[in-house]
Amino acid sequence: MEDIISLCKRRGFIFQGSEVYGGMAGTWDFGPLGVSLKNKIMSEWWNFWVEKRDDMFGIDAAIIMNPRTWVASGHTATFADPLVECKNCHGRFRADKIANGITESVTTEEFQSLKVKCPTCGKTDWGPIRKFNMMFETHIGAVLPDDKGEIAEKSVAYLRPETAQGIFTNYKNVVDTIYPSLPFGLAQQGKAFRNEISPRDFILRDRECTQMEIEYFVHPGTWEENFEKLLKENHYFLEEIIKLPKSKIHDLEVPASDRAHYSKRTVDFMFDYPNGEEELMGLAYRTDFDLQNIARESGKNMEYRDKNTGESFVPHVIEPSIGVERLILAVLSSAYTEDEIDGNKRTVLKLPENLAPYRFCVSPLLKNKPELVEKAREVYAMLREKYTNVTWDDSGNIGKRYRKQDEIGTPKCVVIDFDTLEDDTVTVRDRDTAEQVRIKIAEL
Amino acid sequence: MEDIISLCKRRGFIFQGSEVYGGMAGTWDFGPLGVSLKNKIMSEWWNFWVEKRDDMFGIDAAIIMNPRTWVASGHTATFADPLVECKNCHGRFRADKIANGITESVTTEEFQSLKVKCPTCGKTDWGPIRKFNMMFETHIGAVLPDDKGEIAEKSVAYLRPETAQGIFTNYKNVVDTIYPSLPFGLAQQGKAFRNEISPRDFILRDRECTQMEIEYFVHPGTWEENFEKLLKENHYFLEEIIKLPKSKIHDLEVPASDRAHYSKRTVDFMFDYPNGEEELMGLAYRTDFDLQNIARESGKNMEYRDKNTGESFVPHVIEPSIGVERLILAVLSSAYTEDEIDGNKRTVLKLPENLAPYRFCVSPLLKNKPELVEKAREVYAMLREKYTNVTWDDSGNIGKRYRKQDEIGTPKCVVIDFDTLEDDTVTVRDRDTAEQVRIKIAEL
Repeated sequence: MEDIISLCKRRGFIFQGSEVYGGMAGTWDFGPLGVSLKNKIMSEWWNFWVEKRDDMFGIDAAIIMNPRTWVASGHTATFADPLVECKNCHGRFRADKIANGITESVTTEEFQSLKVKCPTCGKTDWGPIRKFNMMFETHIGAVLPDDKGEIAEKSVAYLRPETAQGIFTNYKNVVDTIYPSLPFGLAQQGKAFRNEISPRDFILRDRECTQMEIEYFVHPGTWEENFEKLLKENHYFLEEIIKLPKSKIHDLEVPASDRAHYSKRTVDFMFDYPNGEEELMGLAYRTDFDLQNIARESGKNMEYRDKNTGESFVPHVIEPSIGVERLILAVLSSAYTEDEIDGNKRTVLKLPENLAPYRFCVSPLLKNKPELVEKAREVYAMLREKYTNVTWDDSGNIGKRYRKQDEIGTPKCVVIDFDTLEDDTVTVRDRDTAEQVRIKIAEL
Repeated sequence: MEDIISLCKRRGFIFQGSEVYGGMAGTWDFGPLGVSLKNKIMSEWWNFWVEKRDDMFGIDAAIIMNPRTWVASGHTATFADPLVECKNCHGRFRADKIANGITESVTTEEFQSLKVKCPTCGKTDWGPIRKFNMMFETHIGAVLPDDKGEIAEKSVAYLRPETAQGIFTNYKNVVDTIYPSLPFGLAQQGKAFRNEISPRDFILRDRECTQMEIEYFVHPGTWEENFEKLLKENHYFLEEIIKLPKSKIHDLEVPASDRAHYSKRTVDFMFDYPNGEEELMGLAYRTDFDLQNIARESGKNMEYRDKNTGESFVPHVIEPSIGVERLILAVLSSAYTEDEIDGNKRTVLKLPENLAPYRFCVSPLLKNKPELVEKAREVYAMLREKYTNVTWDDSGNIGKRYRKQDEIGTPKCVVIDFDTLEDDTVTVRDRDTAEQVRIKIAEL
């Protein structure tokens, strides 16, 4: 993990958020190469799940939603972690993270009986367990304090802790305007915020993440077949489009005791991250839980009327949900390789071609020979016209350039040398094998 | 404006945010067609400004930044509107919006002397002018109240009121990792939040908007020529890529008295919106104001060292800044047309081909003729393979379908009829002229 974090910073993939001011815990900024990787992953997802399908439609809802959303969804009441404070050093921790074998519903008595040592000062003098809601709270509107210094309660709003509710609250809008046939899915990509007590593991547990979620609406009687279909399709997406190694993805059938009370089936896709197995994505059968909550809270009818049978019912939902950052870390950690080329150690990012920030790097063999630079610029312009994601590199010597392009995952380096001027051929070096072949410029 | 809002809702472009719960003022949700339009506009921007250029790089910074960011940028002190409260009905208003001829720096005495009537109750009994900071405030970390019910001041954070500072704070990260030559630009697309006292004018003045900003770093001696270059390029983008009518865009040279104190030149691109002329985008010369602020607040060196001359200096910055929602409204209002076809009134959205949610609509002439439906499905599959953004429509009769596709801006409708089965030709109807031509399927 440390090596990956270091490479990400060194090469401009991912920086600590607000680094220039000493950082902002749990936030990360994407640099030029990181944005490119992130955009490619997000486009592949959108292309696979929305653009190429007839049964999926996009949604892009606001981050700040009416607070009744979170009452209906249950987040106001239950989206909370057990927080405990050390009476000695006033350090605050998630109780279930500093003690073994307890759950999020641990009581003060249970916790205190464990005599856990404070990770900061080593004492065992703990205050009571308090429920800490992980939604970020803010105030909306002209909310200056009144004469007593208080801000009106009615102005409270939250940053959405998940994108899913932005889909559910628009279900009826979509049904009333697009009239899609069941089954159909609504897909959304966007930021979600969780005030993690202890953000950690690089971009794996951050306070601000980009979710990609689908709510797939089905006739209640067909949930099992649709679940199976989505399970297969999600594997296909991860393995064939994003090209994650199958051997690192493990389906975890979540047992009834660990599932949300309304869910009859949930499969977590676990992934072998550098620090161990962690959830990469989830596929959950949510029944009609969310639409019924909205119907109750809003007083509006969430029924779908089948055009052919005339039957009316509240659709059931299957939800594939993935965080872009988790997927990026899966891609980076699968690609990260240290090997030897001709007896020299090197670091190489074996990214699939469709995700690599640059597909080609074009270089003149020597940067102080104008005739080589000019020819290389021609080749560069030609390739860039065709592919856009082509980079130019004339820094250092050719060996250094190869090392750099290896580290940022560029599949092919194209080098223009004196032979090029004679016969219009170039050297194309392969990132993974370091093999070089000589080919005609016209065949690039 | 009302007609556009109505079409947006009716056809699934844009819904009121959290509509199912009665809305959330100043927020808007994009439906299936709106997401498609928004994504196309954002891709065209990214493609034009970043992908196709050698001097631009992407950034994607977190929304929640270290609060020192906003001290350095001046937002903590000055990003505020003059708020005034009616003592009678307790309505709160922006003083400079309910009185004529005053500025944001109006004093209580000045305002009270104007005897402005309260827009709600008509009384003229006003409280003092108070400065209302438009940044949304939140708290980060394990921020439960202490024994006195207070939340620690040090946990305060803000939702970014602009994306620009996410670029400036990463300037040094980029210089240290990518080593770009001057001039170079850093580009970002992302959400920004402003707690507008009175959100209004549909998506023009919302509380949550998606900004597309570039900070273009130049040698201080070259700002004028780079400003001119960016001015031309921004016109080209708006007029040739987004295809806004030139006649609706007006350059406004902002006079010195209205410019930020550090800026030597600012051009606002004004646009003829349905409700009148409003700012579409801004191009501002910001000198080294932001980097110097960061240098002072962080104690870090923001100098750039020229590789060729060895000269060290803090670069100056030119900033083109545009909000996606403002651009979407410019596109929609330019495209919105009411005309007559064969004596029948219709509404048509004359979107450019590169922005229309769907490029083609494929229909069987009659939906109850299986042989037509089958053939139409074949044509649909063929076009979809090639273009992805193709839609299928077999609802109602053919006339109704044309009206619908006109309203959502689909440039061409392809209709399969009985002749198709004989000679493999189809009818292609043009959205703008309503003319129909007969062509071979193979030539589509």
